[in-house]
Amino acid sequence: MPTFVERLAARWHAAHSLLCVGLDPDPTRLPAALRGRDDAIFAFCRAIVDATADLVCAFKPQIAYFSAYRAEDQLEALIAHIRRQYPGILVILDAKRGDIGATAEQYAREAFERYTADAVTLSPYMGEDSLAPFLADAQHGAFLLCRTSNAGGDALQMLDVGGERLYERIARLALRWNRNGQLGLVVGATYPAELARVRALVGEMPLLVPGIGAQGGDVAATLSAGQTADGTGLVINSSRAILYAGQGEDFAAQARAAAVRLRDEINRLRRQPPLG
Amino acid sequence: MPTFVERLAARWHAAHSLLCVGLDPDPTRLPAALRGRDDAIFAFCRAIVDATADLVCAFKPQIAYFSAYRAEDQLEALIAHIRRQYPGILVILDAKRGDIGATAEQYAREAFERYTADAVTLSPYMGEDSLAPFLADAQHGAFLLCRTSNAGGDALQMLDVGGERLYERIARLALRWNRNGQLGLVVGATYPAELARVRALVGEMPLLVPGIGAQGGDVAATLSAGQTADGTGLVINSSRAILYAGQGEDFAAQARAAAVRLRDEINRLRRQPPLG
Repeated sequence: MPTFVERLAARWHAAHSLLCVGLDPDPTRLPAALRGRDDAIFAFCRAIVDATADLVCAFKPQIAYFSAYRAEDQLEALIAHIRRQYPGILVILDAKRGDIGATAEQYAREAFERYTADAVTLSPYMGEDSLAPFLADAQHGAFLLCRTSNAGGDALQMLDVGGERLYERIARLALRWNRNGQLGLVVGATYPAELARVRALVGEMPLLVPGIGAQGGDVAATLSAGQTADGTGLVINSSRAILYAGQGEDFAAQARAAAVRLRDEINRLRRQPPLG
Repeated sequence: MPTFVERLAARWHAAHSLLCVGLDPDPTRLPAALRGRDDAIFAFCRAIVDATADLVCAFKPQIAYFSAYRAEDQLEALIAHIRRQYPGILVILDAKRGDIGATAEQYAREAFERYTADAVTLSPYMGEDSLAPFLADAQHGAFLLCRTSNAGGDALQMLDVGGERLYERIARLALRWNRNGQLGLVVGATYPAELARVRALVGEMPLLVPGIGAQGGDVAATLSAGQTADGTGLVINSSRAILYAGQGEDFAAQARAAAVRLRDEINRLRRQPPLG
C-alpha cells in the first residue's frame, strides 16, 4: 500500500498539476440557481469538482463551511463522489484539529473513517502525541500548521525560540516526527521568504500552500521559494478565486477557466517535471 | 447583557461549585443498557447531565466524540436539553478550533448559532485575527490553549521565547487580546507549577483546568496554584472519572457520587467564597 506522500507524488505527475481547489462553500456566495435547494452546498461543490477534476492534484474541503450549516451529510456525499469518479485525486480535509491522544483518536476516526479523507490539516500546538492517532495508518497524511497565511500568525510563529523562529522549529520538529513519510506542512503563499526557509529545512516534504489569489499570494514567488528540484513538492491551494470566478449559470465553466489559468501559470513557472 | 465571564462568576457562586463535567461519550464505554440504541450517545450524556447538574458550574461537551459517529444531532439535542432544564449552567464546546478569519466565522457560527454554546476552546497558533469572530458578541467566551495536560505539549509550550516560556507568552497575549473580558485559558492540572505561573500573570482571568482524575492531576495542587483571592477563577474539568464511575444500571448514580466527591474535595480545599 503506497503512503500518502507517494500517492500525492503520483498524482502530481499523472495530472501534471500542483493545483489544489479548496472547497469553501459560502452560502451567501452560491450561484442564484442553486440557492434554496436543500442540497445546495453539495450541488455547488460537485459542479466545481466535476469542472476542475482533471486540473488538480487534490481537493481540500474546509469542514467549517459544512458544519456551520448542518451539512455534514453533504460533505460525506461530496467526498464519496470524488472517490467514485476521480480515484487518483487526493482529498485533504482542512480541519486544523489538535487534541490529546484519546480525543485525537476520535478526530482521526472522523477524518479517515467517516469522511474517508486521505489527509488532514492539524495544529502542532499540543505536540507529537496529539498527532499520533492521525499517523496510525501509512496511507494517511497530515499537514501541520507551520507559517500560516494570515497577518495574526506573526504573534506566535515569528517568535525567536533560541536562534530560530517558532515556524522554523515546527519545520524541524516535523522532520523528526515524520517517521513514515506521512507529514507535510502548511506554509502560506503570503510569506515567500519563510516558504523558502521551510523548503531549505525539510527537503522534499510536501508543503500545502494557501493564500494564492484572494489573500494576495504570488504564484511566481511561491514556486521560486517552494518547489523541489523536480518541480513538485507543493500543493498550491486556491479557494475563493476559483469557486466564485463566476456567479451566473456558467459558474462551473468560469471556475474551470480560472483553474486552467492558475494551473498553467504554475506549470509555466515551475521546473519542468519528467513527462509521465 | 452580562458577559460570559460575568455569567461564569455568577454560576460559581450560585452553585457553590468550580466543577465542570466533561461530556466525552466513548461508545465503547457506554453502559450495556444503552448500547445499540440509536440515541445512545444522547441518552448517556443526558443521564449524566441530569445526575450532576446541581453540582457543576459548566458542562464541556467534546465535539470529537459526536462528530466521529455522525451524532451532531445528538449534540444539538443535548445542549438544548441543558438550556431548557438548567439555564444557569455554562456550556463550553471543546472544539479547539483555529483558522483564518473567514473560516473562523464559520466555526463561530457552528459553536454559537448551531450548538448555542456559551464558550469554545481555541488554539492560539494562528493569532488574534483567528480569534476575533468568536469574540464578536460579549456574551460568548473562549478559552485559549496555553499549557495543555499532555506530555507532548512540552515541545512547543515550554520553548524559551526570550526570557519566558511560550505558554507564558500566550498568557500575556491573552491579557492583551482580552478587550471585553471574554477570554480564559486552558491550563492542565498535570502541571501545577505552570498553573501558578499563569495565575500570577493573568490576574482574575478564568482558567479551564483539564487533567484531574484519569490524567493524574491533583486537586489540592490545582487549587493552591490556580484559585483567585475569592476562591474561584477555575473551571475544573473531570470527564472519564465521572462518566465511567459505574458501568452498570446505576451508572448515573455512580457518576453523581463521583461528582459529589470531587466537588466537595474542591470546596474543602479552596478559600471560602462569600455565601451566595
